[in-house]
Amino acid sequence: MNILCVAAHPDDIEILCAGTLIRYAEEGHQVTMAIFTAGNMGDVHISPEELEKIRKKETLASAAIIGAKVIWAGIDDELVFPSLEQRHIMIDILREADPDVIFTHSPNDYHPDHRYVGQLVFDAYFQKGLPNIPNQVKPACRFGQSQLYYMDNLGGIDFLPAEYVDISDVIEKKLMMLACHKSQLSSMEELANTDLIGMVDVQSRFRGLAAGCRYAEGFVRSDSFQRGLTKRILP
Amino acid sequence: MNILCVAAHPDDIEILCAGTLIRYAEEGHQVTMAIFTAGNMGDVHISPEELEKIRKKETLASAAIIGAKVIWAGIDDELVFPSLEQRHIMIDILREADPDVIFTHSPNDYHPDHRYVGQLVFDAYFQKGLPNIPNQVKPACRFGQSQLYYMDNLGGIDFLPAEYVDISDVIEKKLMMLACHKSQLSSMEELANTDLIGMVDVQSRFRGLAAGCRYAEGFVRSDSFQRGLTKRILP
Amino acid sequence: MNILCVAAHPDDIEILCAGTLIRYAEEGHQVTMAIFTAGNMGDVHISPEELEKIRKKETLASAAIIGAKVIWAGIDDELVFPSLEQRHIMIDILREADPDVIFTHSPNDYHPDHRYVGQLVFDAYFQKGLPNIPNQVKPACRFGQSQLYYMDNLGGIDFLPAEYVDISDVIEKKLMMLACHKSQLSSMEELANTDLIGMVDVQSRFRGLAAGCRYAEGFVRSDSFQRGLTKRILP
Amino acid sequence: MNILCVAAHPDDIEILCAGTLIRYAEEGHQVTMAIFTAGNMGDVHISPEELEKIRKKETLASAAIIGAKVIWAGIDDELVFPSLEQRHIMIDILREADPDVIFTHSPNDYHPDHRYVGQLVFDAYFQKGLPNIPNQVKPACRFGQSQLYYMDNLGGIDFLPAEYVDISDVIEKKLMMLACHKSQLSSMEELANTDLIGMVDVQSRFRGLAAGCRYAEGFVRSDSFQRGLTKRILP
Amino acid sequence: MNILCVAAHPDDIEILCAGTLIRYAEEGHQVTMAIFTAGNMGDVHISPEELEKIRKKETLASAAIIGAKVIWAGIDDELVFPSLEQRHIMIDILREADPDVIFTHSPNDYHPDHRYVGQLVFDAYFQKGLPNIPNQVKPACRFGQSQLYYMDNLGGIDFLPAEYVDISDVIEKKLMMLACHKSQLSSMEELANTDLIGMVDVQSRFRGLAAGCRYAEGFVRSDSFQRGLTKRILP
Amino acid sequence: MNILCVAAHPDDIEILCAGTLIRYAEEGHQVTMAIFTAGNMGDVHISPEELEKIRKKETLASAAIIGAKVIWAGIDDELVFPSLEQRHIMIDILREADPDVIFTHSPNDYHPDHRYVGQLVFDAYFQKGLPNIPNQVKPACRFGQSQLYYMDNLGGIDFLPAEYVDISDVIEKKLMMLACHKSQLSSMEELANTDLIGMVDVQSRFRGLAAGCRYAEGFVRSDSFQRGLTKRILP
Repeated sequence: MNILCVAAHPDDIEILCAGTLIRYAEEGHQVTMAIFTAGNMGDVHISPEELEKIRKKETLASAAIIGAKVIWAGIDDELVFPSLEQRHIMIDILREADPDVIFTHSPNDYHPDHRYVGQLVFDAYFQKGLPNIPNQVKPACRFGQSQLYYMDNLGGIDFLPAEYVDISDVIEKKLMMLACHKSQLSSMEELANTDLIGMVDVQSRFRGLAAGCRYAEGFVRSDSFQRGLTKRILP
Repeated sequence: MNILCVAAHPDDIEILCAGTLIRYAEEGHQVTMAIFTAGNMGDVHISPEELEKIRKKETLASAAIIGAKVIWAGIDDELVFPSLEQRHIMIDILREADPDVIFTHSPNDYHPDHRYVGQLVFDAYFQKGLPNIPNQVKPACRFGQSQLYYMDNLGGIDFLPAEYVDISDVIEKKLMMLACHKSQLSSMEELANTDLIGMVDVQSRFRGLAAGCRYAEGFVRSDSFQRGLTKRILP
Repeated sequence: MNILCVAAHPDDIEILCAGTLIRYAEEGHQVTMAIFTAGNMGDVHISPEELEKIRKKETLASAAIIGAKVIWAGIDDELVFPSLEQRHIMIDILREADPDVIFTHSPNDYHPDHRYVGQLVFDAYFQKGLPNIPNQVKPACRFGQSQLYYMDNLGGIDFLPAEYVDISDVIEKKLMMLACHKSQLSSMEELANTDLIGMVDVQSRFRGLAAGCRYAEGFVRSDSFQRGLTKRILP
Repeated sequence: MNILCVAAHPDDIEILCAGTLIRYAEEGHQVTMAIFTAGNMGDVHISPEELEKIRKKETLASAAIIGAKVIWAGIDDELVFPSLEQRHIMIDILREADPDVIFTHSPNDYHPDHRYVGQLVFDAYFQKGLPNIPNQVKPACRFGQSQLYYMDNLGGIDFLPAEYVDISDVIEKKLMMLACHKSQLSSMEELANTDLIGMVDVQSRFRGLAAGCRYAEGFVRSDSFQRGLTKRILP
Repeated sequence: MNILCVAAHPDDIEILCAGTLIRYAEEGHQVTMAIFTAGNMGDVHISPEELEKIRKKETLASAAIIGAKVIWAGIDDELVFPSLEQRHIMIDILREADPDVIFTHSPNDYHPDHRYVGQLVFDAYFQKGLPNIPNQVKPACRFGQSQLYYMDNLGGIDFLPAEYVDISDVIEKKLMMLACHKSQLSSMEELANTDLIGMVDVQSRFRGLAAGCRYAEGFVRSDSFQRGLTKRILP
Repeated sequence: MNILCVAAHPDDIEILCAGTLIRYAEEGHQVTMAIFTAGNMGDVHISPEELEKIRKKETLASAAIIGAKVIWAGIDDELVFPSLEQRHIMIDILREADPDVIFTHSPNDYHPDHRYVGQLVFDAYFQKGLPNIPNQVKPACRFGQSQLYYMDNLGGIDFLPAEYVDISDVIEKKLMMLACHKSQLSSMEELANTDLIGMVDVQSRFRGLAAGCRYAEGFVRSDSFQRGLTKRILP
């Protein structure tokens, strides 16, 4: 299958979904990590241009660990909008990945970029398969036939997972991927006084407590008319 | 009374609301069917221009069955946005119909065009009656004084009706209206493997099971400050 | 129609539902006020036996204002339970009233007696019409065919009305009925520092603000399979 | 695996869950159908004693179609309570079936017997595996390790399925099982003006519309601490 | 502390939040009242340009009562959008106020301008503290570290307060502030048949009933990752 | 103030609420830990009588660490019911503690004993202050005037905290209290394969992530008419 995760910032996937992607990759599925913004505003000392270069390199290093393809949309960090322009970009991302499963941010996430990326994915869902949408770069891929999952958020505020993936066997690899985002580890420390590695360890163990395994990631499926709801397509 | 239904695509009204509109029409009320998009992307073989012509003709045929007026906004299918431009168009639709009751799509519908049409109707509600909104074509109509109802969606996913309309006596006419959308019957068959007539029959019977009649349509009222909530204005 | 309101304590109906009952009574419907407990614990100075006598008299005076029938179940105040014994009593109350519309407390009311009365009414709904339930005093009445409404609660905590009744024309009569509960006016003042008349005035005006009239009462319908959901049966 | 469905009345399983049980049975799992009440109040002409005999025979005929074991608890219809006595009975039912998956009624079902059966199953969950619970007939079975699913209700009122089972290939067998309940087909016709077979056909097709198959049954999982939430255990 | 309230129209703050602001002001905190639109569409007789002048003057008079600073963004009334342009304006408002506490409209308010102002505040939250956001007029203020509260709405429709502020001692001052909006008192009377002063009195008393004081305002906190949720920062 | 926590089993308080109780105790408030059941079923090897003795001793040791008073109701584990008998016991517990703040289990906890203890506390709330309730051992305490908080559950399933208490400075003491429950540490290991100390560490850190401190406990307040909702009474 083709697995796609679309996140707003370069480390979101590692924090919220990497364990699941690792499991898909290890089962031989094609994984695509799409990063919608350049993550270029998250530092008070480094210029946006410089920061984008750093973060893209970090993302490629992380993706290389599981052989995932990277789509780098390069939208300015903090400036995601559900606009026509960004819709076109999102449709092309979906078309390039032609996904069987899509992961993205939840509509009630704490960060506006996350919310709008989630909204753009939802909005682009049908258009990925319709050939006549004007001004698209990529040709239409398959119509429908993907399942859409919303990811957890930091601290789990207003998020109750409905499905869990056991990531106990791949937690080290998940933390290795996260560790590629060196610029962010220090920036989060400075700006938000947060130890990213420790935070992800705690959140994965907490979701594991609920699910009945050592480490887990939690998701909520976005159900919709005739989207093949009779099977579990998660690993 | 003036009854207005604003839908995103040319067959949405027939699927979700036509039974109720038929009952209003038979009671002598003035019914307006507003179609926000041209429905011109739903086919992989027919060009958008050609498709718009076909679907407009089908819509006029359906509306003629109950003597409803049609407003055809002609926005490109799949490209509805809650933008300033489309807001202006929606305000003029509401002003033209000067409605006592408005039906539209629910904010958690499965299709982004549906969601945004519903959002535009909600957003245009107050402006229909304010004379100083700039760049409108139509003069202001009555301020407030309409009730707003959200329609069911396909398969009823995340939708729990709060009010029902008994359409047992008009189900044949509803299916006749739907049958006018010939282009869609075949397209839905091909694209989504869906038999539209059968689907509508099942959904109407299911809502009827809940309501205690043979066939029904279900709705949720969007309540708001001083909108005349002490009466049932549904047929 | 036969209208039944089942409340836990002798003044609950006046506070939460009397305006609606007055309107039914004025339209010629038969109104029954069923009081499940004797309301005999609400005073620190008067003995339970004495208090029951006082409160029953007050209730009869209030009911007389609209010609309503009173059913006085006399369960000990604060000791309502969804038990077999109290279920039998509730079934007989419903059978005696043979209601087309039932009002009772909401399942998330702040008072346990209220909650359990609401639960008992819900639980007794089907049994009112089944002739073979053992140990009942009254014969079965009509099966099904009633609508069940939950009443507002004090301060509206966790209660969002879905339907409103305009009681502007009968607010004086509602307050007259409430004023019959003299023992309670002073007791609420002493125990809970609450001015009952003022409280009911404010709550009715607040619900009127929402509904678009001067005074209103708010309700939530308890929907269920085939309970005749296509009509508004409220005044 | 051991599959257990606990329902309140003799035809509830056929209406809401039989398709799923058939699929389990065809895959070689051991299926147990537990009927908590004797279903002996649902007729106005036949005595409760006589009716119990008829309905037990009908249930055994239905279960025989898939080789399911039947547990007949024989509680008086309409008199289910979450009491100590009925808790003991429910614990023994669970112990006898030693289930990997349990299906039962949802806590917000329309019928009090359904609600209380669901509550009793929830309440008995831990006790099935604790050897020291006094006054039990059966020895403790495995501790924990089962998943609990709530079934749909008639008309789907207040019920939004979260998981679906495709029953397209077994719908005829489901209707055959339902057809065994001859006494109920006529009684529902008379008491509630309901065609059971037609109703089940419509509801299964409606759930299938949502799920993307011809016929489906819908469920909601009752999640709980460490209940093995990382796998789909439904067919 | 720095207290900021961002509302859509010139009288919204007085109606929904002024009591709380008065209490903050009396405790010596710096209060900023930000009015996003010019409130210039709310009258059918006065031109938008004229109306803006009147309403700004009224707002300044009201703010003067508590020594609050006013930020007047001057967006056209009824034309609030979560667009890039208005996002820039909102970020600068937040930066100018550098708030410890922010009050704004709730995402499910009845008025689209209210909803979009609330959404813009939510969306601008992180950007207020990030120095590299392009095209901003004001320099970045502190990162994070504010709590965000959503205000009540008229009639309390779909709004359940989670926290209350006792405004019994400042209700007269709240009504004095509201009375500054003379143009609105008459316009609401004409357009919506609403007595603003009476309405606010009723709503404050109703919220007081729930909270256990004479007059109160109700709020819901918008929780988010690491926003200092272990303290009450309300007066 | 008088602080009361009522839990179902001897280690529930330590897992879910001890940090908050420690903080109250250190501020000089009087803390009462009420354990409703004897916790005597949780072991497959030790007899219920023996187990009760062990667990009571462990509870007293834990309470001694903060000088808390213990109320040991001794109901048989797994047999909590919202019955009249257990209601009487709960009323006397509340009267003995005369609480300003009450903590108990949430109504949607995963364990039936937890749910029913929470329900009994809710149900006994008003009766603690009414002197005429028959068959009580203790005299009535103050009427009303307490706030009621629901505790988190294991894994946080279906629980979204609305308020948090920072327990970073007392986490070691919380784990010391938990460590007193030696019998449970080994039993949970064997029965449910759960490391209690590690679990509590993870859950406290996870709630701290959300709240913005190192360790936290999360709660939901049960609001009710006039229960003094304008203050935070948590430490």
